[in-house]
Amino acid sequence: MKIAIEEAYAGIKHGHGGPFGAVIVKDGEILSRAHNTVLLDGDPTRHAETRAISIAAKKLGTYDLTGCEIYSTTESCPMCFSAVHWARIDRIIYGTQIDDVKKLGFNELTISSEHMKEKGASNVALSGGFMRRACEELLEAWDSMSEKRVY
Amino acid sequence: MKIAIEEAYAGIKHGHGGPFGAVIVKDGEILSRAHNTVLLDGDPTRHAETRAISIAAKKLGTYDLTGCEIYSTTESCPMCFSAVHWARIDRIIYGTQIDDVKKLGFNELTISSEHMKEKGASNVALSGGFMRRACEELLEAWDSMSEKRVY
Repeated sequence: MKIAIEEAYAGIKHGHGGPFGAVIVKDGEILSRAHNTVLLDGDPTRHAETRAISIAAKKLGTYDLTGCEIYSTTESCPMCFSAVHWARIDRIIYGTQIDDVKKLGFNELTISSEHMKEKGASNVALSGGFMRRACEELLEAWDSMSEKRVY
Repeated sequence: MKIAIEEAYAGIKHGHGGPFGAVIVKDGEILSRAHNTVLLDGDPTRHAETRAISIAAKKLGTYDLTGCEIYSTTESCPMCFSAVHWARIDRIIYGTQIDDVKKLGFNELTISSEHMKEKGASNVALSGGFMRRACEELLEAWDSMSEKRVY
């Protein structure tokens, strides 16, 4: 999670996108690390989690990331939760929640990962609130920036 | 929709991924056309809709596709619905439904676009069942292929 947070700080420092980072781990080894590049790429699909998944999948040569876990600084939006599901990632470990980010002005769908999992009958396990304070500080740091942009 | 169906046929002919195509239109002009490349790219995030969004956004130079509509041969999965929402696309016009595809063996989350829209408080408009028969034929054509792969 420390590396996911570092990623997010690097992303906002350069104005690449929102204050979000993700890391995918398999057997104790980091497969990929990524931050949100919606503004850099002008591409609404390039969240931290989807980018981390694309990079890890390319590295392993398959869409199937069974046996992996993903650390994400904030609870995955429904797009990213669903991408994790399609990738067969075992578990999402996250810090802050969608509601925390919605308050900052992002155009979030108001659907929690717990709801996505239950309604969608997904096997993805969820562990929220991990290193929550450090992830909150990241959001606060972004919120205090003068040149911040929501999307 | 005819072009979205053509895209899907081209994709399954070459084994790029599932039988899905999408086209984004703005002011009567086609901005992008794409098919699913999950198997070709080994990337679970590369569905027809997310690819069409990435291409259209690159063309316009912004993540904001307000004023666009997307044609999709099948109802968008929650990942793609959410990507459409993040892209501010006005409307999704689709043929067959998630349930039709789930029956073929794809690892779909069982969450309809209507549910995503209502639960998520999204402004994306939905028009289902458009050219449904032609979209069904596409799924049947894929299902009759000997070398088909679900994911």
